[in-house]
Parts: sequence; structure tokens; C-alpha cells
Amino acid sequence: MAIRYPNGKKYTPSVPANKKKSYDYSFSNRGKSLEDELNDTNEYYLAHSLAVIHKKPVPIQVVNVRYPSRSAAVITEAYFRTPSTTDYNGVWNGFYMDFEAKETKNKTSLPLQNIHLHQVEHMKQVIEQSGLAFFIIHFSLLDRYFLLPFDVFLPLWNRMEDGGRKSITLDEIEERSIEIETGYQPRLDYLQAVQQWIQQKRLDIDSERQEEK
Amino acid sequence: MAIRYPNGKKYTPSVPANKKKSYDYSFSNRGKSLEDELNDTNEYYLAHSLAVIHKKPVPIQVVNVRYPSRSAAVITEAYFRTPSTTDYNGVWNGFYMDFEAKETKNKTSLPLQNIHLHQVEHMKQVIEQSGLAFFIIHFSLLDRYFLLPFDVFLPLWNRMEDGGRKSITLDEIEERSIEIETGYQPRLDYLQAVQQWIQQKRLDIDSERQEEK
Repeated sequence: MAIRYPNGKKYTPSVPANKKKSYDYSFSNRGKSLEDELNDTNEYYLAHSLAVIHKKPVPIQVVNVRYPSRSAAVITEAYFRTPSTTDYNGVWNGFYMDFEAKETKNKTSLPLQNIHLHQVEHMKQVIEQSGLAFFIIHFSLLDRYFLLPFDVFLPLWNRMEDGGRKSITLDEIEERSIEIETGYQPRLDYLQAVQQWIQQKRLDIDSERQEEK
Repeated sequence: MAIRYPNGKKYTPSVPANKKKSYDYSFSNRGKSLEDELNDTNEYYLAHSLAVIHKKPVPIQVVNVRYPSRSAAVITEAYFRTPSTTDYNGVWNGFYMDFEAKETKNKTSLPLQNIHLHQVEHMKQVIEQSGLAFFIIHFSLLDRYFLLPFDVFLPLWNRMEDGGRKSITLDEIEERSIEIETGYQPRLDYLQAVQQWIQQKRLDIDSERQEEK
């Protein structure tokens, strides 16, 4: 039933600017960005001594700083710089972990244009040093999260470099990555997916050894 | 011999502002800061696929950004934030490495006032997850560098917390840390010291096992 002003004009509730998105957030993620969810998860891991993972600060080139008396230094001129690494890294159970988080509103594929060459180069260097490198991908409209190992991602990146498609399909992701189950605390327990991935890697190595015998 | 102007006044060469420090830099380090030297070393490690170690960007709280047309975004108001971790981390040969660099002009001890509680807390969390945590210390006037493992540092930090001395003496550092030999390329090859440290740790574990038998 429409509410009307005394003059008969229909009342339309004003929506605050920050709620105007047409985006239908499910109750479960309460409109949090992937970055917020990962920060919450990492805080939980830290508080419970499960892992030490931090988001790296955005690199900024500071040009001018003012020092007002009796207060904190104010940066008055600065510029964003391109990061030379991924956004997240840290240590879990002796493993070096390094990942990039990517969110898409696309329902059928992850566009590769948001992944930068320097991030790919960095992750190559990480796996050369026996670190764990991966992507955490969020299909926000499907509310599904995946852990995509870097060594699985690389051939799909190379396909694009060789002139192939500029995205990874959801089918390919479902096939090759570990889906992260969302829970209550932490909501996005990606370490479980990391453990599954490592177990799978070990099984693969063992079965290769069996075959060699 | 003093050089004089035609009017007899003595000529004093003007020294550029950035060279005014009285500090007597030896030729070997060419006035580079420890941070510059570590950045050079880390670049060398990266270029030669030896390790992937980066300095974390300084965390900055951005308050205002201007977007002039046809040019890069300009940050016009921002503030420095306190870092929640150490400055350097990365991966080498499967090991997670995490360290803080400290430089002192003091010739006989390292004052502890430049080391922050949150850094110590962070390094505790790192060793709980089986990462390698340490300090790289530069006595600039002696031109000596040391790798001080965090587990050796911690009792000396606790001594201060219990009301003891607010510094670590050079003698204590000589006794308990690995001196980093400076070379040509890279000048500050701290990975050698890390390797020595790990070998020593393994020997200690082995001799403990021998004693148990």
C-alpha cells in the first residue's frame, strides 16, 4: 500500500546515497567487500594463533609533509604507486603464503584484465622459492568463493597471452580450484581450502611416485 | 691554502644542504642508509632468483584525494599510521622470513627505544608459526652488521621490561648473533648469515637429541 502526503502525492522514501546500489546483497555477507571479509578472517587467525597474514599497505609516494605544531604530521601532497607484489602475505604452519583477492560481479567468468602482469611475475618468483601462491576469487552475485592455486592459474593466463580468451570461465574455476565454504567464525575460512589443496598436492606426488615404481 | 676573493675576503665553499651532515661516511658504504643497502640486496636476490623479500610500504591513512583532469590522482590530505608488523618479509627456499632493520650511531650498544612493542608481538606470532624472525643491526660508526635472531633477542627485551637495562650491549650482540660480512655484490649478503644461523640451529637440535640418547 502506497503512503500518500496530505496533498495526495505519493510518498517515496529517500534512500541514502550509500544504499543506492541495485546490487542484491544476501544477508550472509551483509554487503562487506572481499577485502573486509579477508581482514576479518585474518584478524581471527591472528587472535587464535592460527596464522599471521596481513594485507600490505597501498604504496604511496609522499612528496610534501607539513608539521603543524602540537599535532601529527600532515601529508599534503602524495601519489599512489603501483604495487610490486600481491596484496596479502604471511606465514602459516611454516608455509609462506602469498595471495591476491579478486572480486567479480560477472556470473560466468573471471575477467583477467584486473590481474596485473607484475602480480603474475611476483607469484612466479614465490613458487620458485617454494612458497604457496594463489588467488581468492569471489563471484559476488553468486556468493561463491574459490581458492585458485597459482600453478593452475598460470596456463590460463598464458592462454590469454597467446591470444586466447581474456577470462577464466566459472566451469574452469569449478574444475581446478577449491571452493571455500563460508561459515560463521571466521566467515571465510580459506585456510581449510589451503589445507585441502596441500593434501591433494601430496596425494598427487605420492601417486606419481607409485607410478614410477 | 685558503682561496681569497679579489677583495681579500676568504672563499668558503658552499656545501649543499643534503651534504651538511658531520657524519664521516667510510668509502665502502658511500653514505647509503641501511634501508638503501637492504633494498639493493633484495633487488639483487630477486634478479638472481635467490629470494623474494620486499620492504612493506609505510601505512598511510588517506583522507582527501583530488582528481585533476588528464593527470594522476593527487592525495591532498593523509596521515602516517603505526605499522602493525615489521618492515621486511618474504620467502627464501621455503622459509618464511620476517625482519626489522635497526641502525645506530652508538658504538657500544643498541638502544631498545627504537624497537616497538607491536614489532616484538608480531615477531612472537611469526616464530609460533615456524617462520624465521630476526633483526639486522647496523653499528654505522663501526661499519659492522649483525643478524640477531628473535629468540635470542627476546630475553634481552624481557630484561628491559622487568626493569633492567634499556639497551643491548655490543658484547652481547657479538656473542649471540651472526656477523654479516660485507662484500661487493650484494654488499650486504644477509642470506649467508641466515644459512649459518639455520645450520647452527640444526646442530643444536642434533646435539640435544644425542644427549637424550
